[in-house]
Amino acid sequence: MQILTKIDEVRRELDKACQNGKKIGLVPTMGYLHEGHLSLVDTARQNADVVVMSIFVNPTQFGPNEDLARYPRDFARDEKLARERGVDYIFYPEVAAMYPEPYFTYIVTEQMAKVLCGVSRPIHFRGVTTIVAKLFNIIQPDVAVFGQKDAQQAIIIRQMVRDLNFPINIIVAPIVREPDGLAMSSRNVYLAPEERQQAPVIHRALVEAVRAVAQGQTNAGEIAEQIRRTILTTPLARIDYVEIVDDRTLLPVKIVAPGTFVAVAVYYGKTRLIDNISLKEREF
Amino acid sequence: MQILTKIDEVRRELDKACQNGKKIGLVPTMGYLHEGHLSLVDTARQNADVVVMSIFVNPTQFGPNEDLARYPRDFARDEKLARERGVDYIFYPEVAAMYPEPYFTYIVTEQMAKVLCGVSRPIHFRGVTTIVAKLFNIIQPDVAVFGQKDAQQAIIIRQMVRDLNFPINIIVAPIVREPDGLAMSSRNVYLAPEERQQAPVIHRALVEAVRAVAQGQTNAGEIAEQIRRTILTTPLARIDYVEIVDDRTLLPVKIVAPGTFVAVAVYYGKTRLIDNISLKEREF
Repeated sequence: MQILTKIDEVRRELDKACQNGKKIGLVPTMGYLHEGHLSLVDTARQNADVVVMSIFVNPTQFGPNEDLARYPRDFARDEKLARERGVDYIFYPEVAAMYPEPYFTYIVTEQMAKVLCGVSRPIHFRGVTTIVAKLFNIIQPDVAVFGQKDAQQAIIIRQMVRDLNFPINIIVAPIVREPDGLAMSSRNVYLAPEERQQAPVIHRALVEAVRAVAQGQTNAGEIAEQIRRTILTTPLARIDYVEIVDDRTLLPVKIVAPGTFVAVAVYYGKTRLIDNISLKEREF
Repeated sequence: MQILTKIDEVRRELDKACQNGKKIGLVPTMGYLHEGHLSLVDTARQNADVVVMSIFVNPTQFGPNEDLARYPRDFARDEKLARERGVDYIFYPEVAAMYPEPYFTYIVTEQMAKVLCGVSRPIHFRGVTTIVAKLFNIIQPDVAVFGQKDAQQAIIIRQMVRDLNFPINIIVAPIVREPDGLAMSSRNVYLAPEERQQAPVIHRALVEAVRAVAQGQTNAGEIAEQIRRTILTTPLARIDYVEIVDDRTLLPVKIVAPGTFVAVAVYYGKTRLIDNISLKEREF
């Protein structure tokens, strides 16, 4: 495994791979790796010959009052985990290399970026789409793998790729959970022991919703209400949103239909956790 | 010369060229070709093995009260001119192929898009950067050639390429003028005979400014004032702006320095003409 920090280096290394007809798979991350990220490496490996992981805590996707400064970082540990999992290259650039002054250009996805997490994080998805497009142009992967945990992010990136005609295949890999159901997240380390103990209720509430739908419930308002009630049985929970939406447009739905999923964001203390689950799969 | 209308076709054709190690040069246009466009073909030819011209009147760069519907179009003539000049491929897509519904993604360049032409055309450059990024991703050129006539556009595209790390070399080719100095533009056909007769004053005013600087004038305010006075000697002229700015930031300058240029927009009747000239070259 090789660690590349300069954009020119990446171009030089990966041009070689490309000229040998090898397919390049990209796993973009902000580091502080957990099994969720590493499962994306496996997916990339299954779909490409060369696996590149980027590790970059992207400042433009954090709002002024968010956790950019205290976002957990441990490059030595990340390096070890990535190597053990079979990553070929880590791209680990500095902020000044990614956002040289003066910097002006952003990619916006209009209303898709303004719903769900976009309500409380108005510049978040603009930062995500911008850094992902930059990584696409630097690494020029054939395939890029994102986690289903960040459902809105994955949907927005798919839309960006379609709208801007990036010649890249986007794969979304399933959520990886702790044994008690809590979705893995680098931010879980923020949780105090009591918060950590209560947080798995989020997943339980989502599974309840799936069960209700299986039993014939189709009313999105009632499903959302039940999820809220279940989550609020844990006294430390503060709900940011529970939304039932379409997996392509992110618009709210009233009646469960193919493509409908629930997305939730819940605070425990200062820690904001997100999770989601499909209520009815699309048929292809 | 081959005419391609489908995105898939372009990918298939140009992948072949790319795999043969050939360099691809792109000349993006809105058609209704004149010698200005064709000079860009020559520049592309000098810098690439395969020359692709796109012809697409891009709806997203026209405001609601602008001339999208009446923008001049003549594909048969364009085809003939492009063929004679040695274009290898014309990419001539339909609007529905470039902007399939639902469409959400745009590229913005913040304050660079809000000055000069951006004041009267607030969504124009968002449309330009978006369509150019799409063409870059579809055609994947090594080199793309733009005209200096649209100076703000060229500067914004250079900035977008740098900011988003597109692996593409941008070349800006000089303005081509009619014998009387009027900058060539597809919109010149809109001009009534009297308007056409008066419009060359724009270039004369710019040349006067260059002469004043050569004689020691450095005060941007005085230079702009003199340009305005000269243009307004033609009774049909209505000035949109005369601005003296830096060629990287597009910010106004007070004292002429390396990189300073004048950009002007002038209406004759309903026709808005733009032009520009460098007052002091950068030294490299």
